[in-house]
Amino acid sequence: MSRVAPVDERRRAETLARHEQLTKPRGSLGRLEALGARLAAITASCPPPIPRRPAVAVFAGDHGVVASGVTPWPQEVTAQMVANFVSGGAAINVFARYTGASVHVVDVGVASDITHLTGIRHHKVRSGTADLSRGPAMSTADACDALDVGARVAGELVAAGHDLLVTGEMGIGNTTAAAALVACFTATEAATVTGRGTGIDDAMLARKQEIVAGASTRAGRWLDPVSVLAEVGGLEIAALAGFIVGGAAAHVPVVVDGVITCAALLVAEALVPRVRDRCIAGHRSVEPGASATLSYLGLDPLLDLDLRLGEGTGGCLAIPVVRCAAGVLSEMATFADLG
Amino acid sequence: MSRVAPVDERRRAETLARHEQLTKPRGSLGRLEALGARLAAITASCPPPIPRRPAVAVFAGDHGVVASGVTPWPQEVTAQMVANFVSGGAAINVFARYTGASVHVVDVGVASDITHLTGIRHHKVRSGTADLSRGPAMSTADACDALDVGARVAGELVAAGHDLLVTGEMGIGNTTAAAALVACFTATEAATVTGRGTGIDDAMLARKQEIVAGASTRAGRWLDPVSVLAEVGGLEIAALAGFIVGGAAAHVPVVVDGVITCAALLVAEALVPRVRDRCIAGHRSVEPGASATLSYLGLDPLLDLDLRLGEGTGGCLAIPVVRCAAGVLSEMATFADLG
Repeated sequence: MSRVAPVDERRRAETLARHEQLTKPRGSLGRLEALGARLAAITASCPPPIPRRPAVAVFAGDHGVVASGVTPWPQEVTAQMVANFVSGGAAINVFARYTGASVHVVDVGVASDITHLTGIRHHKVRSGTADLSRGPAMSTADACDALDVGARVAGELVAAGHDLLVTGEMGIGNTTAAAALVACFTATEAATVTGRGTGIDDAMLARKQEIVAGASTRAGRWLDPVSVLAEVGGLEIAALAGFIVGGAAAHVPVVVDGVITCAALLVAEALVPRVRDRCIAGHRSVEPGASATLSYLGLDPLLDLDLRLGEGTGGCLAIPVVRCAAGVLSEMATFADLG
Repeated sequence: MSRVAPVDERRRAETLARHEQLTKPRGSLGRLEALGARLAAITASCPPPIPRRPAVAVFAGDHGVVASGVTPWPQEVTAQMVANFVSGGAAINVFARYTGASVHVVDVGVASDITHLTGIRHHKVRSGTADLSRGPAMSTADACDALDVGARVAGELVAAGHDLLVTGEMGIGNTTAAAALVACFTATEAATVTGRGTGIDDAMLARKQEIVAGASTRAGRWLDPVSVLAEVGGLEIAALAGFIVGGAAAHVPVVVDGVITCAALLVAEALVPRVRDRCIAGHRSVEPGASATLSYLGLDPLLDLDLRLGEGTGGCLAIPVVRCAAGVLSEMATFADLG
């Protein structure tokens, strides 16, 4: 899965030229013009296809580091929220509904046994990671398996006709793993990229920062991205990295959500350089690691609404923007049409 | 139409409290939480209704000031674009399609005769304004008639079941009128609020600024908002002001688009104080008069995508955000539901 062709710069240029013909003042659609051209470059098509069947994949996994007190939420909440996704009562279900996306839930590493749940993909690699504050979160073999789950899910969704992929996740404790990955891959101080996640007090934040600092220093010894991922990552983060690469390999645009998927994108980019060119940053999460990643990768998020929920919610909100950016290129009249 | 009840602060507080019960970390939906509460306050309902049938009203009018060289576009383009709206080939048609809104076009002051066009509302008050650089753009009677057209259209759309109103417009030269209104109502220097509109060169911008300065100074002599509007406004701007008040009076949220509707909102607010409490700023237009207005009125726009097209495009893009903000409040599970 490591081969991803460069995006099509000729289609990008063609699309920018096409914008000059549409019945509107030059440049008046602002960032949607560059977005439309980016979609053309990714899909090698001018005008780019209008996404008709966006899919948000929500990967769920648990984190051993919760034992070290980085969050007030018990680990059981991950499984409870997976059940909530299945019954349609979570924020991502509502957001997907009103932005025209379907939700696909994947258990890649939930700690408890949820095999009884129907309506989700069961691809558990292991029952949560080990405590990354005390040693490697998982083996490199586990990390590779989880990467593979994500790539496989992307492939299946594309094969089923989904033409826009949105990254989503759930995992109590996963902002700690994400912060460690962001600190390591962007070579940034742990304190700078560690946020309050679901909302923690100052004492817990100090502990979290200390854990992120230690973990990212440890992870920094490794040269290869999979070892970094195994050392301080998470199963759902690994799967998301594979998902991003899988979508990119299929030339389907991937909308990136918040800080967890930012961390996954850093892993994906380390594995397959320029995979980011096939991604769209959906929004700017409040979590500092998200801004650090977007700035490091040179991605400009479409929305900035102070979200910090994850699940893919911010990514979903970007779908109508993407559709409009693509839609104007095939459905607007040109000056020639009007005479 | 001047009576608009204060928004329902009790429902706002109830909605914020309801957010604490939903299955997500506290505050994790960021600005969508305040938006949901605002919708509840406007509609006096907790949870607020999820807008099912948004309508964008596009008011078209011409501006005599084009004779003074404030835009490179000929006045005929207004009528051509109205025809484009009717045949579905304009940006607003595409944006409305992908955000689930219907488009309603109103001729309130197009210079040329377009009575042959079907599928639009014909409420022409006069065939364009006079040149506002040389004297009043219109009489106060015309301004009142145009205000009334807008209020009537809002009432009709609400009666037909539309539950979210989006402001749109078309009128070659209308950023000049809008800038004059913004300068006057916000007591800001003309140079600060005058932008390049559809894209003009430095020489034309200098002329435009001079015209806006003179016009806003002249308009500033008037105490009453209708006289200001008549002195330097436009027919579509007047109609939009009436439309905003009409939507507000019906307790239907009104999504405000770019600088032209910002100017209209200033007129509406001057006529009916606190009408802004029933509006939602859809986006931040590139035009400086938009930011000046939003800041003056204390409105925080949802999106910031460097748009400067008008027509209601930026307002439409906010629709899915509004739907999600309302949707989570009725469709998400609560912690009690999950046990």
